Amino acid sequence: MTSPQPHGTSAPGVPLPETSHQGRDTAKHHNHQARSVAEHAAAVAQLLQPLRSPNRTEVLPLRQALGRSLVSDVTAPISLPPFANSQMDGYAVRSADLPDGGGELRVMPPVPAGASPDGLLPGTAAPIMTGAMLPEGADAVVPIERAVPDRFLPPADQATGQATVVLPSVAPGTYVRETGSDVRAGETALAAGTFLGPAQLGLLAALGMPEVTVYRAVSVLLVTTGDEVVEPGRDLPAGKIYDSNGTLLEAAMRQAGLNVRRTGIVTDHPEKLRGLLRAEGGAVDLIVTTGGVSKGAYEVVRQAMEDHPVEFLHVAMQPGGPQGIGTFEGRPFLGFPGNPVSCLVSFEMFLRPVLAGLFGSPAPRLPLRARLGHPLTSPGQKHQVRRGTLLPDGTVELQGGESSHLMHALAGSNVLVHVPVGVAGLAAGAEVEVWML
Amino acid sequence: MTSPQPHGTSAPGVPLPETSHQGRDTAKHHNHQARSVAEHAAAVAQLLQPLRSPNRTEVLPLRQALGRSLVSDVTAPISLPPFANSQMDGYAVRSADLPDGGGELRVMPPVPAGASPDGLLPGTAAPIMTGAMLPEGADAVVPIERAVPDRFLPPADQATGQATVVLPSVAPGTYVRETGSDVRAGETALAAGTFLGPAQLGLLAALGMPEVTVYRAVSVLLVTTGDEVVEPGRDLPAGKIYDSNGTLLEAAMRQAGLNVRRTGIVTDHPEKLRGLLRAEGGAVDLIVTTGGVSKGAYEVVRQAMEDHPVEFLHVAMQPGGPQGIGTFEGRPFLGFPGNPVSCLVSFEMFLRPVLAGLFGSPAPRLPLRARLGHPLTSPGQKHQVRRGTLLPDGTVELQGGESSHLMHALAGSNVLVHVPVGVAGLAAGAEVEVWML
Repeated sequence: MTSPQPHGTSAPGVPLPETSHQGRDTAKHHNHQARSVAEHAAAVAQLLQPLRSPNRTEVLPLRQALGRSLVSDVTAPISLPPFANSQMDGYAVRSADLPDGGGELRVMPPVPAGASPDGLLPGTAAPIMTGAMLPEGADAVVPIERAVPDRFLPPADQATGQATVVLPSVAPGTYVRETGSDVRAGETALAAGTFLGPAQLGLLAALGMPEVTVYRAVSVLLVTTGDEVVEPGRDLPAGKIYDSNGTLLEAAMRQAGLNVRRTGIVTDHPEKLRGLLRAEGGAVDLIVTTGGVSKGAYEVVRQAMEDHPVEFLHVAMQPGGPQGIGTFEGRPFLGFPGNPVSCLVSFEMFLRPVLAGLFGSPAPRLPLRARLGHPLTSPGQKHQVRRGTLLPDGTVELQGGESSHLMHALAGSNVLVHVPVGVAGLAAGAEVEVWML
Repeated sequence: MTSPQPHGTSAPGVPLPETSHQGRDTAKHHNHQARSVAEHAAAVAQLLQPLRSPNRTEVLPLRQALGRSLVSDVTAPISLPPFANSQMDGYAVRSADLPDGGGELRVMPPVPAGASPDGLLPGTAAPIMTGAMLPEGADAVVPIERAVPDRFLPPADQATGQATVVLPSVAPGTYVRETGSDVRAGETALAAGTFLGPAQLGLLAALGMPEVTVYRAVSVLLVTTGDEVVEPGRDLPAGKIYDSNGTLLEAAMRQAGLNVRRTGIVTDHPEKLRGLLRAEGGAVDLIVTTGGVSKGAYEVVRQAMEDHPVEFLHVAMQPGGPQGIGTFEGRPFLGFPGNPVSCLVSFEMFLRPVLAGLFGSPAPRLPLRARLGHPLTSPGQKHQVRRGTLLPDGTVELQGGESSHLMHALAGSNVLVHVPVGVAGLAAGAEVEVWML
């Protein structure tokens, strides 16, 4: 971080459980100008950049590499296809043997897929199966449907060596898949940073590579904080709510390929939080907390980080404005706000795209254009992130309002809807950028 | 299956390894009219429908339920929010105490999040934190920024009980999140069949539910067949290719939440394939093979299924036309064609949407509209599935041609592009349906 000094905007006057908090320099608390989304994303990228190191790579069998990304370019060790082969079930021929109007050719033994056939003599045709290697000398395939007879000959007829077939004329190259027509040996088959989904892993397999060098999954210690949150399944005392941040973020992180280590809920005791982070933070690449970062009086994460190079600041974004960033005993640290929707938006706006940019995994969200189904208003000085449902016709229906506490509305959404800084309102039908969730 | 008799379109004349194959009734081999994509999808749905049974459900902790789907509607056991709470850090007030122009109120002890506060007496204001329960009697919140003084009072000043704050007038309900404003107790929070992603699991947690009843993951025995295919990492003899189907389909299936059991490659020996399916098929919900289903002479899957209620047919689709469907010793069976791109298209067109429809998991592909970046041609009597890259501006660039062997082109694609039956060509700029991969 370029600015490792903690500073904040909390209001220090309310009775606080920690006396250490009382000693805060009031100079730290005046309102700094909010950071832009891009500036904060850049700060997160700078924080996590050291994770992209040669120490953090591993070699995995293809089946274990799903969702990872390539450390280096993959050069094709062979061409695909590796040899010219037939695109059809039919007859491999020398096209010169079939002048205008076609001709009658002697039928040779068939070429099944997987065989390495003898060369094709002039005046002959070899039954050939889809994918089978074209015999030396052959330069075209006539589909079986266009042959007379239009079915392969019984073996008995072939055994005599006298069987013939009448075939139409054919241009050289017809129904032949040429060597290297998909990718040529020596070309870059996949670039460094490529996300390894089914098709990319399938391509590596087709190239004969049983394993691949990938970045290790980023590991995260995920800590939910707050006196007001209770584990699901317990009784819910008056004034408390169930913790959804832990479940929501763990699932989002796991879906994005992170290894997540979750702790229980930490109540508002900074010393307890520090102890937990000391005990468990050493084993992970990144610490993420939720809650305790805003302007309230009981901000456990702010308090716990007082003597650490952690900044608490406001990003010009709604929801998810209050953010913490820095290191805790050398370990990268991000403090997300306590509201569930703010948490998910923080993850989608900062952690996910930064990891995608650094590693290629998770895959970045594809930005799409959509038309608003409703009008909306937005705080003009902030980047607003609404939730919505993208319909097949390209319309997006907003789910819930601006308020960040609407988990049910979030659960009914399939996109994030972006309203950039400088836009205070949009009419129904206006075009917006959406990200598929 | 309504039509359990095997029938086919293979050409039986070429020398075949299995004498049993020679005995095929030629009546079975004439060309049936191709089945439509919708008809085949319906047949797959009928085949797999019995898997949606109460026997195939389980109760999982939320963190293990990612990617599964709900067996039943979830009725909200509590409202969200469970109680009226503050949307801001500020002062909880009785709005009637602040007539036009506002007024001065006595400051009460603060209400942190998680507390169950005393009722608010007339003429008083309670400092309240975001998310904290609104005291009985309070009906609005004034943000701290609008108070005079505009910060919370030090505890010493409060202890005297004499501290006051000047607040503007405020409408009832201002900055109050009402009980049940997201979802009300007794309402359906999530419907049966809902895919459980991060937001849906987060909602269940917010509702206090630590576990959820889901369908068990569908298990698949995945068998790659063909004399021509070799495991990646081995030497590649002339005429052979590396098996990419196994890796490609295993990854696609795992990404879709299936449990995949893979065998080694089965070469073209029907008896060996039957033995394998007997040995391993009993432990899974579904058998999927690749290869050996088309019109060629060496079709091991067709041959192995001769005495089983399996249909081999042609779907009016390019690629992926040849398909097998039925049961092997009572076990649902799908035979995909041998080409990698055809395999993936078969999975995306039949298995994935059918599972999505039956269970809600995997999530269905979202169909989007896009504009073609290039013109294309298509066989008018078939549903063509091309691969492409959807750009943020809504244009789709086709990757590779019609040919189904282009793994490298597939690996560079992020969408499937649909060209329906009856369309023989489209101009650049034409609107098409695409599915995000």
